[in-house]
Amino acid sequence: MARPNRQVLLREIPTGKLEQSHFDVRDGECGDPGDGEVLVKTRLLSIDAANRAWMQGATYRSALSGGDVMAGGGLAEVIESRADTLAPGDIVNAETGWQEYAVVPARQATKIDVKGALTNYLSVLGVTGLTAYLGLTEIGQPKPGETLLVSAAAGATGNVAGQVGRLLGCRVVGVVGSDDKGRILTERLGFDAYVNYKGGNLHKDLKAACPDGIDVFFDNTGGDILGAALFRMNQHGRIVCCGVVSQYDTSNPEPGPRGVPGLLITKRIRMEGFIVFDLFNRRDEALERLSGWVDRGDLVVLEDVFEGLDSAPHALVDLLAGGNVGKRMVRVS
Amino acid sequence: MARPNRQVLLREIPTGKLEQSHFDVRDGECGDPGDGEVLVKTRLLSIDAANRAWMQGATYRSALSGGDVMAGGGLAEVIESRADTLAPGDIVNAETGWQEYAVVPARQATKIDVKGALTNYLSVLGVTGLTAYLGLTEIGQPKPGETLLVSAAAGATGNVAGQVGRLLGCRVVGVVGSDDKGRILTERLGFDAYVNYKGGNLHKDLKAACPDGIDVFFDNTGGDILGAALFRMNQHGRIVCCGVVSQYDTSNPEPGPRGVPGLLITKRIRMEGFIVFDLFNRRDEALERLSGWVDRGDLVVLEDVFEGLDSAPHALVDLLAGGNVGKRMVRVS
Repeated sequence: MARPNRQVLLREIPTGKLEQSHFDVRDGECGDPGDGEVLVKTRLLSIDAANRAWMQGATYRSALSGGDVMAGGGLAEVIESRADTLAPGDIVNAETGWQEYAVVPARQATKIDVKGALTNYLSVLGVTGLTAYLGLTEIGQPKPGETLLVSAAAGATGNVAGQVGRLLGCRVVGVVGSDDKGRILTERLGFDAYVNYKGGNLHKDLKAACPDGIDVFFDNTGGDILGAALFRMNQHGRIVCCGVVSQYDTSNPEPGPRGVPGLLITKRIRMEGFIVFDLFNRRDEALERLSGWVDRGDLVVLEDVFEGLDSAPHALVDLLAGGNVGKRMVRVS
Repeated sequence: MARPNRQVLLREIPTGKLEQSHFDVRDGECGDPGDGEVLVKTRLLSIDAANRAWMQGATYRSALSGGDVMAGGGLAEVIESRADTLAPGDIVNAETGWQEYAVVPARQATKIDVKGALTNYLSVLGVTGLTAYLGLTEIGQPKPGETLLVSAAAGATGNVAGQVGRLLGCRVVGVVGSDDKGRILTERLGFDAYVNYKGGNLHKDLKAACPDGIDVFFDNTGGDILGAALFRMNQHGRIVCCGVVSQYDTSNPEPGPRGVPGLLITKRIRMEGFIVFDLFNRRDEALERLSGWVDRGDLVVLEDVFEGLDSAPHALVDLLAGGNVGKRMVRVS
């Protein structure tokens, strides 16, 4: 039985900045699940800079093509199951695409044991929170008293990375694109300082905010911010390469920072990229610590929810322009 | 008693390429050692790209100034000692500067127990050999069967890094600036293949020489070669940042490679700089393995000796132009 299904399509691959006009919204259909599949109803879509990166070519997943249902995922409710492992009513993490209903293989749908707000399972207890905790601890290895710099620090991953650094005893400095965001960090999330990279004095402001240099840099942006941070890194510093949001929304990425590899050598810096799934052997530990901190009120949950599937294109375009504060998502149902 | 002392001075800090005209040779004098000092006679000067890097500003040592005796060091013989630890006739590793005689603090002169050719203690059993062995094993962590790429592979450090990789079971590919150098690698040193980066098809040639990708890149050059190698790195690859010879001979270094940090993330690459002295806790192990390989003929010693102190400026300028094959040094006495 074909079921009416609201869908957002990627009309064409953008060559420059992504705009809402690159998307189409249509009333489509959804088929029935086959053996081993489930029919799910999308509840919350995760909106991430990675959605844009997928349009640039193969990353850790295959590239998107124009005309496809926009790739993405989030939390969904099982409506009909043809697999033993899942039953109607289960909440799963799945790649639904940007649509109301989807048929997905049961083994690609991870059941979530929801204990609190559903949104938390896309933010601090979801991939972004795990990325922050596992990337920071595994690659960054911060020690109490060290200075941790976080870029895109008001973003979904950055705000958690900074707060985890604070809870592990670091002095934490966030790089953001506005003073409003900066004040959220220092006034609500316990960051020690912030730098507004649009302030026109990135090098000077970074020096003022990090008088003892930078020991760990949790980098979500790359580009000029990475370039400036390299000059402030301390010897034996570590750079956690988590994202390159400065370079996603273009088809002509900038050259890399001048300090690579020269400053890596003179300062003995380790710079390392990771994908959170590689670190999932420590997933349970991470969730236990994160949920403990949330339950005790030590870790502030910062979420940014848009309402309705049709708002998804705007939610992504605006995120790429730096509009989000915390984890952005779209409530579909 | 002032002693006649031939000296090479750095006349001025170069703003572009280093030339012989940036140096002056003069007949100067050398004073007497004070308490805790030794008077040494320079035997062999080590000629390294790092000599040029010191002119660019503070690195792991302070920057040079115009008018100074050119900084550098190598192996020297103690002539007169005012320290308990050293006696006339001892051979030491010391920072003599580019001159026939020098007075140096005894605690900065490391006594060498010479067992074979003196030159070996600047090449495979000296800092360059240790840099190759320790950097490759500690940072690169090569596994048998993996592909190791080495840049400046006919150079002092590169040729040893490649041979060590071969002895550890890797498939080894060298990047060089001429086919003559490449043939030395494959015909004399046991490299599996080479790429001439001046051949005009760096990306294509690298792909052909590394059909299974690159697992470990021991990088002495940075710049375009690093940029090209990043695209061929395998997942979880490691880049040993050992030198940036492509950027030393200029006062206007190029931007960094475009793949940083994007490719570090999608490929989960670790990129790490080091200074060999940080790894000296493993110095004895390194020397034991290196000298064992040399004694058994498994590791070919590649040396490139200029005669006479006055040849030092030419030896350095020519090294920066890629003229050396193996470890370049100047025999002073």
